[in-house]
Amino acid sequence: MAVYTDISDTELEAFLADYDLGAPTSFKGIAEGVENSNFLLETEAGRYVLTIYERRVRADQLPFFLGLMEWLAARGFPSAPPIADHEGRRLRSVRGKPAALSAFLPGLAVRRPTLVHCREAGEGLAWLHLAARGFPGRRVNDLGWRAWAGLFAGLATQAEALKPGLAATIEADLALFARSWPAGLPEGIIHADYFPDNVFFADGRFAGAIDFYFAAWDTLAYDIAVALNAWCFQAGGAFDVAAAGAFVEGYRRRRPLAAEEAAALPLLAHGAAMRFFLTRLNDWTGAPPGALVRPKDPLEYERKLAAHRSGAAAGAWALPEAPA
Amino acid sequence: MAVYTDISDTELEAFLADYDLGAPTSFKGIAEGVENSNFLLETEAGRYVLTIYERRVRADQLPFFLGLMEWLAARGFPSAPPIADHEGRRLRSVRGKPAALSAFLPGLAVRRPTLVHCREAGEGLAWLHLAARGFPGRRVNDLGWRAWAGLFAGLATQAEALKPGLAATIEADLALFARSWPAGLPEGIIHADYFPDNVFFADGRFAGAIDFYFAAWDTLAYDIAVALNAWCFQAGGAFDVAAAGAFVEGYRRRRPLAAEEAAALPLLAHGAAMRFFLTRLNDWTGAPPGALVRPKDPLEYERKLAAHRSGAAAGAWALPEAPA
Repeated sequence: MAVYTDISDTELEAFLADYDLGAPTSFKGIAEGVENSNFLLETEAGRYVLTIYERRVRADQLPFFLGLMEWLAARGFPSAPPIADHEGRRLRSVRGKPAALSAFLPGLAVRRPTLVHCREAGEGLAWLHLAARGFPGRRVNDLGWRAWAGLFAGLATQAEALKPGLAATIEADLALFARSWPAGLPEGIIHADYFPDNVFFADGRFAGAIDFYFAAWDTLAYDIAVALNAWCFQAGGAFDVAAAGAFVEGYRRRRPLAAEEAAALPLLAHGAAMRFFLTRLNDWTGAPPGALVRPKDPLEYERKLAAHRSGAAAGAWALPEAPA
Repeated sequence: MAVYTDISDTELEAFLADYDLGAPTSFKGIAEGVENSNFLLETEAGRYVLTIYERRVRADQLPFFLGLMEWLAARGFPSAPPIADHEGRRLRSVRGKPAALSAFLPGLAVRRPTLVHCREAGEGLAWLHLAARGFPGRRVNDLGWRAWAGLFAGLATQAEALKPGLAATIEADLALFARSWPAGLPEGIIHADYFPDNVFFADGRFAGAIDFYFAAWDTLAYDIAVALNAWCFQAGGAFDVAAAGAFVEGYRRRRPLAAEEAAALPLLAHGAAMRFFLTRLNDWTGAPPGALVRPKDPLEYERKLAAHRSGAAAGAWALPEAPA
C-alpha cells in the first residue's frame, strides 16, 4: 500500500499535456507496490497507471527497468509497458521525483494460489525469461548471492535479537553458499520479485506480471527458486511439494529445464530465502517508529530458511522429470 | 489512504456470488477515505467500489448512510449508491466486518479549487440538500455543536500543550456558541464532511459527492459553513472572500438562502472550525505511534478558528445578496 507523493490536479494536467490521452476523468491513489506511489488514471483515451518513484528505486537504474518493460511488451509478454510522451520520453519527473506513465494491466492477483495458479504462474515466468532474451540492457543483481554476506555483516546483532543462535546459523548458511553456489547454469534477465501480488490472472489463466524494479541479469533457475518460496509454502509453514511441482511443470511448458537446473533448485531456494530474510530484517530494523508502511515480518522468511536448511523441503522435492 | 482489511480472491468470489456482475477482472485497494478500506473492483459488468467498514463507522448507523445514498441516487443526485445483492441486501459482511458494494462514480477531486470549482461545489451542495428532502431516515449529528463541550472536556490538557492559553480561548468560544448558536434556521439532511476530496468534477463541472458517513439531520447553513472552511481558505491561512462568495452564489443557484441563514454563516463557520479542530485534536492525541494513517494536523483548524474568532473572516464576508 503506498501513496507517498501527492499530486495536484494542476500538476496532473501539466503532466498529461505532454501526451495525447485526452482529459483525465478519474484519478485515484492505489495500493500497489510498497516502494512507489501509484495512481490509477483514467482519461478519455483509456486507463493508465502513474508511478512516482520514491527513494528506494535508484533513478539511474530506471531506464533499464522501463526499457525492459517496453521490450517485453513489444514481444507480446503481457505487462504494463511505459508510455512515451510527445517527445519520446518514458521517464518523466513529478515534484522533482522520477515518474512514468504505464498502460493499465487488467487481471487479478491471487492471495491463496491454487495448483492451477502455480502452474500458470510457472508458465508465465518461463514466458518472461524467453521474451527477455536479447534485451540489450544489463544490470547486475545487487541483491544476488554475492551481496548477502555484506548485507548480513550489519545485521548480525538484529538476527541474534530476533532469535538467539540465529546469527551463527546464518553464518553457516552463507559459508555453504560460498562453497556450493552452482556456477554455469543458464543466465538471463530475471524478474527477481515474482511474488503472487506481482502476477495477474484472468479467468484463472496467467494474464501478466508487473513490478520489474528488481529485475537483473542472473541465473534463470534462481528466479524459479524465488518464486517457489513465494508461491509454494502453506500457511502453516510447510513447503507445498505439489504446488512446487505444478509451478515447475508450468515453467517447463515454455522453457525446458536442464537436469542441472532442476537439481540446483533446493539450494537456490535456500539462498532465495536468505535474500528475502536479509532485506526484510534490514527493513524491519531500519523502519522509523511512525512509518506509514509496516515492514514485512522477517520471521516468515526465517522459517522458510529453516525449512530449506533442514532439507525437509529439498528432500521432498520429487519434481517431475522433464518429458523425454 | 486506507486499506486496513485485506480480502482474498476466494473471499471476493464468495462475495460476488451473491450479485449478477460476472467474474472480477481487476481488484485494487484504493486510497480513498481515511475511515474505511476501499477497493476498486472491475467485473465483466462494470466498475464498482467495495467498502469494508472499520471501527470508526458505527455499524448500527450504516443502514441510514446506505439508505441515504440510495435515496439521493434514485432522485438523480450524482453519487455512488450501494448495490443490492440477489436478496436485496445492501449491507453485507466481509471478514466479520460490515461491507457494501457501490457503483463507481467517475470524476476528479480537486486539490486546489478555483472559483469555478467553488461555485460548482456550492451548487452541488444545494442540489444534495434538495435531493435529500423527504428521506425518512433520521440521525442526530453526534458531532453537532451540542457535543463540542463534552468533546473538549477530555482534551483541554492537549489543547494547552498544543498552544499555551488555547484551552481558555476554546472555553470562551464554547461559551459563545452556547449563548448565540442560531436556532430556527432551515434544517434537513446535511453531508457534514463536504470537503474537496469528497466532491468530484468532470470537465470542470460538479459531477457528484461521496463519503456520506457523517451525514445527519442538522441546520442546512451549517453544512455550507463546514464547506466554506474546507474550500475557501488560502494556503497561507487567509480566508478567501471571493471563493466563499462563489460557493454561496453557486449554492443559491439551486436553493435560495434566507437572510437569516446568510447572516448566520460567520458564526456557523466559527463553530464548524471548532468541530474539526476538536476531532483532529482527538485523533492526534489518540493515534498510536505505529499508526498506518497519519492524523491530520489539528493546527490547521486552530488557525481557522482564530481567523473566525478575530472576525477577520466574518467582517470580510460581503456575500452577495440573493437576487431580488
